[in-house]
Amino acid sequence: MDENTGDARADAGDPSKTDDGDLSGLFAPERVAVVGATESDGSIGRAIVENLQADFAGETIPVNPNYDDVFGLESYPDVGSVPESSEIDVAVVVVPPKIAVEAVRQCGEAGVRNVVVITAGFGETGSEGASRERELAEIAQLHDLNLVGPNSLGVMSTPTGLNATFGPENALSGSISFMSQSGAFITAVLDWATDEGIGFKDVVSLGNKAVLDETDFVRTWGDDPDTDVVLGYLEGVEDGAEFIDAAREVTDDTPIVLVKSGRTEAGAQAVSSHTGTLAGSEQAYEAGLEQAGVLRVETVQELFDFAQILSGQPIPDADDVAIVTNAGGPGVMTTDAVGDSGLSLASFSEATLEALADAMPEEANIYNPIDAIGDADVERFETALDLALDDENVGCAVVLSAPTAVIEFDDLAQVITDLQAEYGKPVASVLMGGERTESAKEILREGGIPNYFDPARAVRSLDALSRYREISRREYEAPASFDVDRERAREVLERAEERGDNRLGVEAMDLLSAYGIPTPEGTVAEKPEEAVAAAQDVEGEVVMKIVSPDILHKSDIGGVRVGVPNEGVYDAFEDLVTRARNYQPDADILGVQVQEMVDVDAGTETIIGMNRDPQFGPLLLFGLGGIFVEILEDTETRVAPVSEREAREMVEGIRSAPLLRGARGREPADRDAIVESLQRLSQLVTDFPAILELDVNPLVAGPDGVQAIDVRLTVDTEKL
Amino acid sequence: MDENTGDARADAGDPSKTDDGDLSGLFAPERVAVVGATESDGSIGRAIVENLQADFAGETIPVNPNYDDVFGLESYPDVGSVPESSEIDVAVVVVPPKIAVEAVRQCGEAGVRNVVVITAGFGETGSEGASRERELAEIAQLHDLNLVGPNSLGVMSTPTGLNATFGPENALSGSISFMSQSGAFITAVLDWATDEGIGFKDVVSLGNKAVLDETDFVRTWGDDPDTDVVLGYLEGVEDGAEFIDAAREVTDDTPIVLVKSGRTEAGAQAVSSHTGTLAGSEQAYEAGLEQAGVLRVETVQELFDFAQILSGQPIPDADDVAIVTNAGGPGVMTTDAVGDSGLSLASFSEATLEALADAMPEEANIYNPIDAIGDADVERFETALDLALDDENVGCAVVLSAPTAVIEFDDLAQVITDLQAEYGKPVASVLMGGERTESAKEILREGGIPNYFDPARAVRSLDALSRYREISRREYEAPASFDVDRERAREVLERAEERGDNRLGVEAMDLLSAYGIPTPEGTVAEKPEEAVAAAQDVEGEVVMKIVSPDILHKSDIGGVRVGVPNEGVYDAFEDLVTRARNYQPDADILGVQVQEMVDVDAGTETIIGMNRDPQFGPLLLFGLGGIFVEILEDTETRVAPVSEREAREMVEGIRSAPLLRGARGREPADRDAIVESLQRLSQLVTDFPAILELDVNPLVAGPDGVQAIDVRLTVDTEKL
Repeated sequence: MDENTGDARADAGDPSKTDDGDLSGLFAPERVAVVGATESDGSIGRAIVENLQADFAGETIPVNPNYDDVFGLESYPDVGSVPESSEIDVAVVVVPPKIAVEAVRQCGEAGVRNVVVITAGFGETGSEGASRERELAEIAQLHDLNLVGPNSLGVMSTPTGLNATFGPENALSGSISFMSQSGAFITAVLDWATDEGIGFKDVVSLGNKAVLDETDFVRTWGDDPDTDVVLGYLEGVEDGAEFIDAAREVTDDTPIVLVKSGRTEAGAQAVSSHTGTLAGSEQAYEAGLEQAGVLRVETVQELFDFAQILSGQPIPDADDVAIVTNAGGPGVMTTDAVGDSGLSLASFSEATLEALADAMPEEANIYNPIDAIGDADVERFETALDLALDDENVGCAVVLSAPTAVIEFDDLAQVITDLQAEYGKPVASVLMGGERTESAKEILREGGIPNYFDPARAVRSLDALSRYREISRREYEAPASFDVDRERAREVLERAEERGDNRLGVEAMDLLSAYGIPTPEGTVAEKPEEAVAAAQDVEGEVVMKIVSPDILHKSDIGGVRVGVPNEGVYDAFEDLVTRARNYQPDADILGVQVQEMVDVDAGTETIIGMNRDPQFGPLLLFGLGGIFVEILEDTETRVAPVSEREAREMVEGIRSAPLLRGARGREPADRDAIVESLQRLSQLVTDFPAILELDVNPLVAGPDGVQAIDVRLTVDTEKL
Repeated sequence: MDENTGDARADAGDPSKTDDGDLSGLFAPERVAVVGATESDGSIGRAIVENLQADFAGETIPVNPNYDDVFGLESYPDVGSVPESSEIDVAVVVVPPKIAVEAVRQCGEAGVRNVVVITAGFGETGSEGASRERELAEIAQLHDLNLVGPNSLGVMSTPTGLNATFGPENALSGSISFMSQSGAFITAVLDWATDEGIGFKDVVSLGNKAVLDETDFVRTWGDDPDTDVVLGYLEGVEDGAEFIDAAREVTDDTPIVLVKSGRTEAGAQAVSSHTGTLAGSEQAYEAGLEQAGVLRVETVQELFDFAQILSGQPIPDADDVAIVTNAGGPGVMTTDAVGDSGLSLASFSEATLEALADAMPEEANIYNPIDAIGDADVERFETALDLALDDENVGCAVVLSAPTAVIEFDDLAQVITDLQAEYGKPVASVLMGGERTESAKEILREGGIPNYFDPARAVRSLDALSRYREISRREYEAPASFDVDRERAREVLERAEERGDNRLGVEAMDLLSAYGIPTPEGTVAEKPEEAVAAAQDVEGEVVMKIVSPDILHKSDIGGVRVGVPNEGVYDAFEDLVTRARNYQPDADILGVQVQEMVDVDAGTETIIGMNRDPQFGPLLLFGLGGIFVEILEDTETRVAPVSEREAREMVEGIRSAPLLRGARGREPADRDAIVESLQRLSQLVTDFPAILELDVNPLVAGPDGVQAIDVRLTVDTEKL
């Protein structure tokens, strides 16, 4: 292997990917070759052939030089020897790692487009494996291969009965397509899902994602009319920006529900020992997945609760929930769950209330939740649900029933299914009980209606529908492009290179000016005379600050002087430099910043900043200065570039936002100016990937504009 | 009914209760009379007799003047006619509401001690019903009856096979005792629990709680050696203080897990229409239940997850979790769940790591979570779990397995059960899969080990064990009793009565001094001359504030003057009064407060306050002043009286507590002085139930003590 090639993945544009991204051959093949097919007991090669033989509608072709046939199918010594080998749609590779790379190369040479590498012993096992994985990626690029894995459990697709995995039995058919970075997760979930009656369209075990990753499958399933919901278990996202782009497009009409594990510190460590990859920050995942339009969940239960309702029920037009029950207590719990969610309790129209009053017994509660009381039969439930769904103030409904002598759950299930279909409003069902609910659940399932024992889950699932409605309606405006002085910004950044240092401080205020973020008048003086001259150019008294990359906490060493009159500037200059020298004799002192006085008290101190995440790139931060960021951790983050809407969400989203809006008799801060500064910062850090970290602290927001008072940044001079 | 008797419940000490609280006869009766027994189809009287006949070990005695016998049992016209009627242990009353009261009276007269009133149509139905319910309580008091209901589904107790309900089939036997304010909740849950293999000791439907309430059952089950866990669904607590006392004692060795519904605004409204009672504040329930040592949960699922592990597993000595798995991805999710919980991931000892390294294959991860990888058989699981549980750094464990070709879940379940029993450390199991887990779950259940499909639930359940350990170890110190001037406090409060007003302001600062909460020197002057004299008694300049119950926002109308020198006091007095008169000509002006200057900037403004909750009584509040309480809602609340530990938890528990500890270069505030002020306030509001609301705002906390600058309170003068 050519060692100059390096890691293909690290290069921009990810050249290991094929161009058109058409994966239809992978999921709907006619001919599947199994490279390493065998009858050997307990082997993966055998499991795959058996799984394929069980249901697959197409042709299974064993490839193994040691056998003439496998389970009665003619076996070939290599892929190239198979007749019309270029018409093999998928090759599944299970041979040992040392020969797997060569096997994939042969697939490429034979014209096979889709390869699933089951073989483990690649990137997950250390440097030798990692180098083998790079080689695999290069071969894939060379031959334009759609390569799944390595270290994959395989792929499934129910329409063709394809089960090219060495794991579970084939899934039930359905409209959920599911990807997982953990093969065991697939095995565990499918076994359970089959018993729960949950079906799938495609299932893919991503393995090490040497070539195809989550973004490719999101794109594929977004274009697939048979996939209603994309589901995933991920431990990381390969390329955050690309993923966001793809997901935003797909979630226009296909919801994406994901577990991204490794959320906690302990979890991130576990991910790193499980997959061998360095985890990006949870903050970046949280922001990035939200911006991508992903419904992120934390538990297996929520993953499938959301998947089921999203695949089975329509999107509600409104968030007002009607509750129909025969059980007061569980009705109250349902109401609490509505209070906890983004939904609200529907207020029935007068007409509905009158009709309910006529139809229900006197002791019933006709206000929402409708308590049809313990002796309600199916007919009374039907009347109540019919009236509720017919009310234009109702967007969706929960039907909740305790078992009673007069309720037949099967009949109730049929009524719920019929009325849901009639009104086209989403309904979740809570038939509470044990085995007696089984056949009713079956009836509900056929109508696409999920049933839960716990009312809180029903409400959270309806809430997911509502959240997805908002996601599907999102308009992703392009980030604003301000007229900036990019060349001047580059010059400022290059100063770091010239100084052989990767840190810049207040001497880089010009960087902000170049991108239109307002800064006080000022300059860095290298000599006291220059300081005096600079102060004379500024109206009134000045602020003077020592400028040194080696002194981070200027105030702590007396390195800042506020309110210096012109006649004091010379002495102040010398005093500041002396203090700095005393504090740290070998400090690199660049001079003294002489700056216009800004009335900090007349505004609110805010912080805008950025750090760069390995997966998602530039992550912007906003918060109020001082205790708000440092103690209360009251910040909002977004992956850059941000649109105006996103920048505004950051400013309005912090808990302490009322302070900016003028709470407690303050003058409101100019939030538009903060929003614009965030967008300009977003443009700056997007234009210059060399900026690794940057903090404007404080950005003082007055009633009439903002001013950046200080800045600190780290630059990767090699990327300039 | 004597209308002067009023609502017995409103009187202190709840005289409707029997004295000794012995409910053994209720749950373990030998003879049960059913007043209203019948064979009539679909009737409650029939359902009860049938349920009793199904399993009850004792004698069932129908009482109904219309029949000679019911289902072959001799029927009596009234309870008094039953031979040896005083030896009837329980009478179940199902006759219509109009005659139910009389039936209960007859029970009392016949010497029956325990009565379960199934009949509805009491307090839940309006004023006539409420008056009937009061009558019932009076009869109960007169005859010293343990009365369940009215409007109850009934009671169950599995040791005697007692099912005196008109609802579900008898429960499985077990060690969970369960009370519910919703009968439907019992019906729904028992049906499901039986299918899940969850058993109960006693079950009671509380109904309207006219006599016996949650506190009585908590006490009873706390004394019951056969009850391991007390479970409840409540919509309200009758007497918060009494409940806290009882629960604190019981939770020494019996955990209490409760759903208290009506948490949200919508939920509270639903409770009110369901039970007809006014809900106390969610804040009070949150504080009160926590102080009582209750594990409060929000969903049905958590209620039973916690119940199962608390009844089946020991309490862990330490919170360090070992995870053993054959599935990397679900292992990471489990680790995340540990990160979300109060538990932590165990660090194995060197010896354990060495032993694991020897025993596990090379590709396995021997650090926690132990990933025994996909080809792990039961033996490998056994080795790993054995080593983990043997490690003294491990307090508890989660065993997680995906289904594989080499794992037999039944065998694994046996291994888990055996090792758990051997080491006596709690274990939760996550055998992921569908029906193939059923028999394994049975094996686990016999060992008291819960199994979950979702690893997050396993971890949260272990966390509940750990939380209960802390609760059971709590020492409830008595609140401190400070030496205070109670008489002087009463005099201040009586001023409100004298003025015919229920509000007091800064003129009541003496109230605080009387209870030892430091206040600046000062007095209320009614005339300018008095103000001048008062100012001369105070060193330095003074603060002057208008004193009027009609002017709430003194600062807003210019009613406060700071830094007034002695020579300015006369004019300032007149100016303040003029401003007040101009602002509100008919305001009742009590004078002007002349107060020592306090350097507010040298300290931190805090707020200590109290409001009175209908169920829990005085609820104390603590927070930092200004934006912290008003915008960030950063407060802690506790039901008074508070111990020193609780007062300290309030001060340390707010998010902004670091500011008090001296964050960002501030001088630390005297937190001990705040803690003491909270305890003194607690004593004040406990001594004077007449104080309905009280706010000290601000209480300035300096480095060396606190000072209360202003106070406002509302007094119920009739309670003085």
